[in-house]
Amino acid sequence: MAQTIYVLNGPNLNMLGVREPEKYGAATLADVERLCGDTCKRFGLDMVFRQSNIEGELVTIIQEARLKKAAGIVINPAAYTHTSVAILDALTLTELPVIEIHITNVHQREPFRHHSYVSKVAKAVMAGFGVQGYSLAIQGLAAMIGAKEK
Amino acid sequence: MAQTIYVLNGPNLNMLGVREPEKYGAATLADVERLCGDTCKRFGLDMVFRQSNIEGELVTIIQEARLKKAAGIVINPAAYTHTSVAILDALTLTELPVIEIHITNVHQREPFRHHSYVSKVAKAVMAGFGVQGYSLAIQGLAAMIGAKEK
Amino acid sequence: MAQTIYVLNGPNLNMLGVREPEKYGAATLADVERLCGDTCKRFGLDMVFRQSNIEGELVTIIQEARLKKAAGIVINPAAYTHTSVAILDALTLTELPVIEIHITNVHQREPFRHHSYVSKVAKAVMAGFGVQGYSLAIQGLAAMIGAKEK
Amino acid sequence: MAQTIYVLNGPNLNMLGVREPEKYGAATLADVERLCGDTCKRFGLDMVFRQSNIEGELVTIIQEARLKKAAGIVINPAAYTHTSVAILDALTLTELPVIEIHITNVHQREPFRHHSYVSKVAKAVMAGFGVQGYSLAIQGLAAMIGAKEK
Amino acid sequence: MAQTIYVLNGPNLNMLGVREPEKYGAATLADVERLCGDTCKRFGLDMVFRQSNIEGELVTIIQEARLKKAAGIVINPAAYTHTSVAILDALTLTELPVIEIHITNVHQREPFRHHSYVSKVAKAVMAGFGVQGYSLAIQGLAAMIGAKEK
Amino acid sequence: MAQTIYVLNGPNLNMLGVREPEKYGAATLADVERLCGDTCKRFGLDMVFRQSNIEGELVTIIQEARLKKAAGIVINPAAYTHTSVAILDALTLTELPVIEIHITNVHQREPFRHHSYVSKVAKAVMAGFGVQGYSLAIQGLAAMIGAKEK
Amino acid sequence: MAQTIYVLNGPNLNMLGVREPEKYGAATLADVERLCGDTCKRFGLDMVFRQSNIEGELVTIIQEARLKKAAGIVINPAAYTHTSVAILDALTLTELPVIEIHITNVHQREPFRHHSYVSKVAKAVMAGFGVQGYSLAIQGLAAMIGAKEK
Amino acid sequence: MAQTIYVLNGPNLNMLGVREPEKYGAATLADVERLCGDTCKRFGLDMVFRQSNIEGELVTIIQEARLKKAAGIVINPAAYTHTSVAILDALTLTELPVIEIHITNVHQREPFRHHSYVSKVAKAVMAGFGVQGYSLAIQGLAAMIGAKEK
Amino acid sequence: MAQTIYVLNGPNLNMLGVREPEKYGAATLADVERLCGDTCKRFGLDMVFRQSNIEGELVTIIQEARLKKAAGIVINPAAYTHTSVAILDALTLTELPVIEIHITNVHQREPFRHHSYVSKVAKAVMAGFGVQGYSLAIQGLAAMIGAKEK
Amino acid sequence: MAQTIYVLNGPNLNMLGVREPEKYGAATLADVERLCGDTCKRFGLDMVFRQSNIEGELVTIIQEARLKKAAGIVINPAAYTHTSVAILDALTLTELPVIEIHITNVHQREPFRHHSYVSKVAKAVMAGFGVQGYSLAIQGLAAMIGAKEK
Amino acid sequence: MAQTIYVLNGPNLNMLGVREPEKYGAATLADVERLCGDTCKRFGLDMVFRQSNIEGELVTIIQEARLKKAAGIVINPAAYTHTSVAILDALTLTELPVIEIHITNVHQREPFRHHSYVSKVAKAVMAGFGVQGYSLAIQGLAAMIGAKEK
Amino acid sequence: MAQTIYVLNGPNLNMLGVREPEKYGAATLADVERLCGDTCKRFGLDMVFRQSNIEGELVTIIQEARLKKAAGIVINPAAYTHTSVAILDALTLTELPVIEIHITNVHQREPFRHHSYVSKVAKAVMAGFGVQGYSLAIQGLAAMIGAKEK
Repeated sequence: MAQTIYVLNGPNLNMLGVREPEKYGAATLADVERLCGDTCKRFGLDMVFRQSNIEGELVTIIQEARLKKAAGIVINPAAYTHTSVAILDALTLTELPVIEIHITNVHQREPFRHHSYVSKVAKAVMAGFGVQGYSLAIQGLAAMIGAKEK
Repeated sequence: MAQTIYVLNGPNLNMLGVREPEKYGAATLADVERLCGDTCKRFGLDMVFRQSNIEGELVTIIQEARLKKAAGIVINPAAYTHTSVAILDALTLTELPVIEIHITNVHQREPFRHHSYVSKVAKAVMAGFGVQGYSLAIQGLAAMIGAKEK
Repeated sequence: MAQTIYVLNGPNLNMLGVREPEKYGAATLADVERLCGDTCKRFGLDMVFRQSNIEGELVTIIQEARLKKAAGIVINPAAYTHTSVAILDALTLTELPVIEIHITNVHQREPFRHHSYVSKVAKAVMAGFGVQGYSLAIQGLAAMIGAKEK
Repeated sequence: MAQTIYVLNGPNLNMLGVREPEKYGAATLADVERLCGDTCKRFGLDMVFRQSNIEGELVTIIQEARLKKAAGIVINPAAYTHTSVAILDALTLTELPVIEIHITNVHQREPFRHHSYVSKVAKAVMAGFGVQGYSLAIQGLAAMIGAKEK
Repeated sequence: MAQTIYVLNGPNLNMLGVREPEKYGAATLADVERLCGDTCKRFGLDMVFRQSNIEGELVTIIQEARLKKAAGIVINPAAYTHTSVAILDALTLTELPVIEIHITNVHQREPFRHHSYVSKVAKAVMAGFGVQGYSLAIQGLAAMIGAKEK
Repeated sequence: MAQTIYVLNGPNLNMLGVREPEKYGAATLADVERLCGDTCKRFGLDMVFRQSNIEGELVTIIQEARLKKAAGIVINPAAYTHTSVAILDALTLTELPVIEIHITNVHQREPFRHHSYVSKVAKAVMAGFGVQGYSLAIQGLAAMIGAKEK
Repeated sequence: MAQTIYVLNGPNLNMLGVREPEKYGAATLADVERLCGDTCKRFGLDMVFRQSNIEGELVTIIQEARLKKAAGIVINPAAYTHTSVAILDALTLTELPVIEIHITNVHQREPFRHHSYVSKVAKAVMAGFGVQGYSLAIQGLAAMIGAKEK
Repeated sequence: MAQTIYVLNGPNLNMLGVREPEKYGAATLADVERLCGDTCKRFGLDMVFRQSNIEGELVTIIQEARLKKAAGIVINPAAYTHTSVAILDALTLTELPVIEIHITNVHQREPFRHHSYVSKVAKAVMAGFGVQGYSLAIQGLAAMIGAKEK
Repeated sequence: MAQTIYVLNGPNLNMLGVREPEKYGAATLADVERLCGDTCKRFGLDMVFRQSNIEGELVTIIQEARLKKAAGIVINPAAYTHTSVAILDALTLTELPVIEIHITNVHQREPFRHHSYVSKVAKAVMAGFGVQGYSLAIQGLAAMIGAKEK
Repeated sequence: MAQTIYVLNGPNLNMLGVREPEKYGAATLADVERLCGDTCKRFGLDMVFRQSNIEGELVTIIQEARLKKAAGIVINPAAYTHTSVAILDALTLTELPVIEIHITNVHQREPFRHHSYVSKVAKAVMAGFGVQGYSLAIQGLAAMIGAKEK
Repeated sequence: MAQTIYVLNGPNLNMLGVREPEKYGAATLADVERLCGDTCKRFGLDMVFRQSNIEGELVTIIQEARLKKAAGIVINPAAYTHTSVAILDALTLTELPVIEIHITNVHQREPFRHHSYVSKVAKAVMAGFGVQGYSLAIQGLAAMIGAKEK
Repeated sequence: MAQTIYVLNGPNLNMLGVREPEKYGAATLADVERLCGDTCKRFGLDMVFRQSNIEGELVTIIQEARLKKAAGIVINPAAYTHTSVAILDALTLTELPVIEIHITNVHQREPFRHHSYVSKVAKAVMAGFGVQGYSLAIQGLAAMIGAKEK
């Protein structure tokens, strides 16, 4: 039976393609969902793809990943990367492999973006590859959970 | 007429019994509700027991405690302990006695868990007694609001 | 055609007039809405006036301001001033002139209220004029967007 | 009898219109004086308008405001905002309402400009409205001292 | 055979009832001893109750608790909470469950009172319940060491 | 009836005249006691003069000053100036005027000697006048408690 | 003509497979070179693969990448990540796209490993994917320089 | 021939008796001058007594003390205590004994008043004795320069 | 027509040759003026040479340099280097090349002398060459403004 | 005549062999005394060996070392290493060579154990050699005071 | 078969006897090598003695110690103590007992010399015994690896 | 006989003219060598001119300057300015006058470039004069060592 992974997106990522395109590129969140779906398919993975602006809703979705016995999580926590202990706690209790991804290289932005609560629980972290990074992150997760390319 | 107290629970506490049982114990949130109910009964108190993953919903529930003329609040703010000025402000405007409670001894965990916004308004603080602490907290609150054991 | 501005209010401002009146004054949020509406009228501006206790809902309302082609935003982010990178990001992506307003002089309160994420994107900032400040803020915004007094 | 307010300007503001016009605008200090005079007239206020490059002279002028029984002070302390305890002390001893104003949004400039000694005593603070802010500040002060628009 | 617990009190607590009664209440240390004795009796516990102004004496008493095979320690380290590594070391070597208690909510006092060396070894911490907190602390300790209420 | 003042000396001051004479001068503690006695006599004050190397003993002596209804305290807390919250607490509970004195100018020594817990409660502080400072401190205290020179 | 990329390895990476295998895995640096070579081949890229323990030698190799007109650099700077401004400067002067890679999630190790000088110039950063990360990094770089999979 | 000492006063001290009398007392600067004159007379000292609001003027007066071969300086630098390196440098170049005096106990005021540049050069420091402290400071200086009481 | 440069000197430099000669050398400010004049002559430059102890006067002189269309400024800001935002602002608005010079190597003195506001606007900085440095600074400025040695 | 050295032990070292044997080893303080005695004998040294839990008692013993004209001190200050300025002052006034010793490598324990007041006066420091380190320390001290092995 | 230990020396130690002899003594590195050789002989140990100015060379030599199956390392990392993560990593991967040694008491020198990366992996640390310390360090290491004196 | 000076260049300076020419200018290191040679000739000085990317090689070259009895050192330590304690130590042991030079004004670049280890030993420091600064530095050094212009 196919394994399922969750691809989660934090606040303002629903505006992708609108927000500062020179920084984030022209792809929309729908484009990202398609890209992720394609990569999952290559590895025989099912995917749940979600976005929310509300910290607590993200917490609930992450809890759901555990209850639904997902195999892993790719998360772009956006602004909540830097401020949310609640998301860190939710990810910790899933006991799942977590990949943290950022579209831009956050280390070259404002200092308050250099700190990540999510990195304390993530197996791996990736930043700066643009939306292309989502595909790389899924590949990396696939390797961790033993999903082979078809 | 019986006084009412609010017992509030922050994010991820709905997963109690699931999340890191070696740290938080096997009791579920329903168990905690029962324990709190029993203690309230001993002191002739009515109880409103609530949990939310969403910071702003907790703010609204706290405001409700004021509007409903509750006699006091016991709150385990979980992750929002460390990050929520909004909850601090909501508690402040209630002008009610507030007891802050944590299941684990947060002072032995990561440094970012050593700071609490809620402690700035709480009358008293308690950490590390396990779920048993809820009962002690209610007893302490009962003493503050003059509710005698029957 | 009339330009529209958004006047946004963060957590606990729905309790205005209730919360520490000696600090915030006796006016309620409805009074503030009326005051803002009157000032807008003097400058021929339409107004959308909103409050939410939930950080992510404020993010969504701010995104809406962009989608609805508003001319500017006056925001009193309250507690989220100090903790919300998500609101900062949402305001940034609107590319609209933003006025940040606080009813009290936050620089005379606790140190954690001296830092504002919103100030990083706001064109102008104002604190300590009481609810009267909303009217001054709208006047200032009107000047920025070329709206003349009638 | 008309109330008098002092409008004070710190170092380098005599160069207004010359210094980095893209940041401060093209208006000169004489223009600002005219704008302030006009606003005062609308509220039936007398005005003393002064500028000095010397910290201690500003201290003396502020003391004079007390001795002359002025009704309030609007001050743009410029560079001395960040370094002058002497001006803070002088403003404190006047026991008058003080409005602090900055032409630019100082919170978006170098970190050493984020701290203000004057904010510790000012009733209200305003930054980023350009020279237009002087007029708003006087309106705000007028409301505080009960001066009605004619 | 009855288990013994140690209830220890740090410097200046011999002045309880004298020192700032509006902060600490009117109860004297003798009153506290009586309250603790009563609570112990309810749980069938023997009690050793001690106070010292001298850091090193407290160290020696704590060592004694180990040598006498006590079942647990309730300690109000008062001023030494914040400065004594020696007491931390002594408590650590006992390998006993330790409850740290403060009469006032130390988190609302001077910043140097926010840090506790004792919290690094205490199983649980409690602050702000007044002298009543001693009784709650003993109840909490009783639960930890399996002493049932009679 | 004559008022009594306490003159207290912290650790290592029993070695005065021995310890680094180029820094502290050649006078011994007995010389200091004589000097203090003479000054007290000029103001009709009785004096209790004490030294201890043990922090907790100093705490007890300070408590005694309260119990004996002393009129004020002159204290050279030596090394405990920088580390003793217990002495700060003891001085606070006396509710007596306290003068803090140091023989050397501590502000020119190592940075850890620049911070004083005692200054938080002392009415006045004096450093760098050598042993002569004891006499000045007593004169200052005499003025505070209304003792006139004969 | 094929583009060339440099894959560079800092100090102690010659001991890969030897050093703490539970942290870094059993693969040797020769295994990594093979893995990288295979990935490059898939994208039609030539590869220069190098390791040095000497900071200055790495500087020289990076300068060579510029002189040889390489298309990009993948670098695992190991310990020099955290201490070498010289490598940062060398990478900056190449004006080439740089991918920074770490085998482990450095954000979960000692605090001094959380800071990276190389991140200030790297287009993208990746940590925690094990040696597998080298392959992902090359894929990401290939996308940046327009090298298509065959 | 009589020795001369300088008694210098920093900004706002010309308002003594006016400014926050509950903090500084009711004595005016003229009263202080009289008090100082009397004390000098007791020790056969000539006195130059000066006040300025301008940092640079104080620098010039201090230089004058050296040129006029004064025997010592008593200085209350007021606000410039905390901000003036120029006054520190001027005092240093006089090579005279300097006594620093503050009317209030600055260590109990805002944190920025706890640091003094002048303390780095002052032989002795005194704070919190009210205007009475000027007299004590002159006595202390007299002892240092060998001026005997008549 | 000859270009003019301003050579400016901050507080206490009028005491050069007097103040700590072992640190600053025996040359007086008149000697420095002569040395600078000679160097200017070699490059066909006119010179304005000024000293003031008053921060605000230096601000005014710097403004004058702009109004008089000077070609550049050599400034030894002395103590104001570390404390004056006003001088930084004045130098910035001149838009002239500024050379900052210190007679001693300030980096080997107290930590508060390691920070310079002036360095934020200065084209070049020089410290530790003694008064000889003035001549080197003028040569460096001459090169920047295209003044050739005759 | 034989030289005497003092071997001093701070708080909780009387529990050696009891306290965390996996960290400190199984040797008791009596074993350490024997080991030290043997080493002293090899170098013809007399030894005074002492332990106290009380900071002020250690101060007094150190003063005694001076009065008894000891030749040097080996001290394991245990917890007081990190908190006692009084012991630092006592050691300083002895003007004797001091060797500081720790049984464990304190640099690998909690951060507050990385700082030592005693190191500021100790000639040499040693940590991590177990109780064996006492013997090495005495050898090192013997070399410093010219005591030859027999 | 004899066990081998490595004695390693960092940058500038080749200048021993030349560099600041008042701080480091007159012994040259050749003298140290002889002293170490003699001590090794007493314990039946073989010795490899090395010095390098190049951080990366030291890394390579440390790796060699592992490959050659050395029994332990005594290292004086000199300046690299404070800056080299690479040496820390190399020492860690050897999994050998490491003794860190410094000729002077580094804790009494500049603050940047108080921090040691090497201490994080060293079994024991020693500073301030002069070159004599090398011999003590080898004795200490001998005890750790079970080498008996002959 | 002619005195010799060393002109030393740190990492990446071999790329001068290539690296960010808008920041460093178009001159190559060979041009700099020529410029330095010419200046030396004017003062009758011999010159050794060296560059290395390797920290430890620079250490060795600096030691050589001492052994060859050079008269002084001009050094542009480039990136090692900020990170190399080894170079600081090497320069210190030469006991030669050292001039530190930077082509750009490092105080206007990233904060980590504001700190210099080399400044702790350098007689003088110079930054921001471009390659022209090398010539000024040699002139300054010439004055220090008494070499007259021919």
